[in-house]
Amino acid sequence: MSIIRKIFTNSRSQEDGIFFTDIQKILGFKPNNLECYRRAFTHRSSNKLDSDGNQINYERLEFLGDAMLSSVIAAHLFNQVPSGDEGYLTKMRSKIVSREHLNELGRDLNLIRFIESKVPAQHFGENIHGNIFEALVGAIYLDKGYMYCEKFIKKRVILPYVDIAKLEGKVISYKSLLIEWCQKEKRTFHYDVFEDNGIDGQRFFGVKLSIDQKVVAKARATSKKKAEEKASQRAYFAFQEKINTK
Amino acid sequence: MSIIRKIFTNSRSQEDGIFFTDIQKILGFKPNNLECYRRAFTHRSSNKLDSDGNQINYERLEFLGDAMLSSVIAAHLFNQVPSGDEGYLTKMRSKIVSREHLNELGRDLNLIRFIESKVPAQHFGENIHGNIFEALVGAIYLDKGYMYCEKFIKKRVILPYVDIAKLEGKVISYKSLLIEWCQKEKRTFHYDVFEDNGIDGQRFFGVKLSIDQKVVAKARATSKKKAEEKASQRAYFAFQEKINTK
Repeated sequence: MSIIRKIFTNSRSQEDGIFFTDIQKILGFKPNNLECYRRAFTHRSSNKLDSDGNQINYERLEFLGDAMLSSVIAAHLFNQVPSGDEGYLTKMRSKIVSREHLNELGRDLNLIRFIESKVPAQHFGENIHGNIFEALVGAIYLDKGYMYCEKFIKKRVILPYVDIAKLEGKVISYKSLLIEWCQKEKRTFHYDVFEDNGIDGQRFFGVKLSIDQKVVAKARATSKKKAEEKASQRAYFAFQEKINTK
Repeated sequence: MSIIRKIFTNSRSQEDGIFFTDIQKILGFKPNNLECYRRAFTHRSSNKLDSDGNQINYERLEFLGDAMLSSVIAAHLFNQVPSGDEGYLTKMRSKIVSREHLNELGRDLNLIRFIESKVPAQHFGENIHGNIFEALVGAIYLDKGYMYCEKFIKKRVILPYVDIAKLEGKVISYKSLLIEWCQKEKRTFHYDVFEDNGIDGQRFFGVKLSIDQKVVAKARATSKKKAEEKASQRAYFAFQEKINTK
């Protein structure tokens, strides 16, 4: 009996261990209560209930995460754009937390691999990616509080994606900016594109951007153009940082 | 010269001292940077600019405060109503942060007495009360961070106003509940109504509710009925607490 329990406990903790490591990698810090994160990836079709008969799925966490995203982004924009009035700040925030953008964020982290559901993944609509991204933010709030929520959103949303010039439409394409820069600096560049399929059957495009034969940025998106643009933006900011710290 | 400076400094710090005390009373804790709170009450008609030429008024703080209110209320509802789904939580939050409710909150604290403006107070629309309440929440975030924002919202919004039974329409009137209770407990009750005028010329009604000839609750609102209801609710909760701690 004790052997059976031991085997059960071991396989259970091994599974938890893998999930813990995966989540920690995504968060950038240690989770405390894994249950919060399991809930963030539990689809309503699982029909799970807690001991009081309340449904366990990610939908309530989505509500919580949406609120936390809104306030962290609001505070960031407030501090970053002191010249922006209320209307400007509202518009910028809407762009950042748009359905499309949230779907992109969830897809990039491939969160759908964690989903627990009784319906097959290809039956989910496109919005599942954004929904579970929001739920993940809600889970972080529940597990670790507002400050960690802020930390995660800075790392996963603001730093790689929130580019005020681009949101304002001042920068049309980072690919063209990067090409321009390479020509000016007499550097060679190369975009290496490959295709892959996500767990839900969605076609993805991966891009490796090399400058002077060295890979400087990678990106993954639902179109070749988007993936190239994303890789260019990452490379552009990485170079900018280098130039600034010289 | 030094005497003039001394007089000036004294009168300045005296004015700051009064504002500090007033704000501290409203917040329930010490403010750090009074400038944040001054800005929360600065109307755009003041035409104030900072050293970079950016406008100083409460409108940007309103955006920030609105976001903080939304997330604190979201977290409260999430924890308080484990059976409520996403739709329920969204609906309840909308009721709590409705324009009408925010105006009531601002009016109750008489925030308009702090306003700095070049147009007379009676020219402001009704929404100014809610707008500066939101701006005050934004100022708290800026001055003291999210946790103090949460503390303030719990004290000033959730504790006195957020009554889930009432929001769900399960309780129609606290006045009738209270009268019922008084009759059952064989206690006498009396509503003493008086009128007063706010700084902006708005007519207010004050109510003192006495039970067994002792004032047990006070309230102030824009109609007699509202003030009576509010006083009844306060008395009802005060008695409930007494009964529970017996």
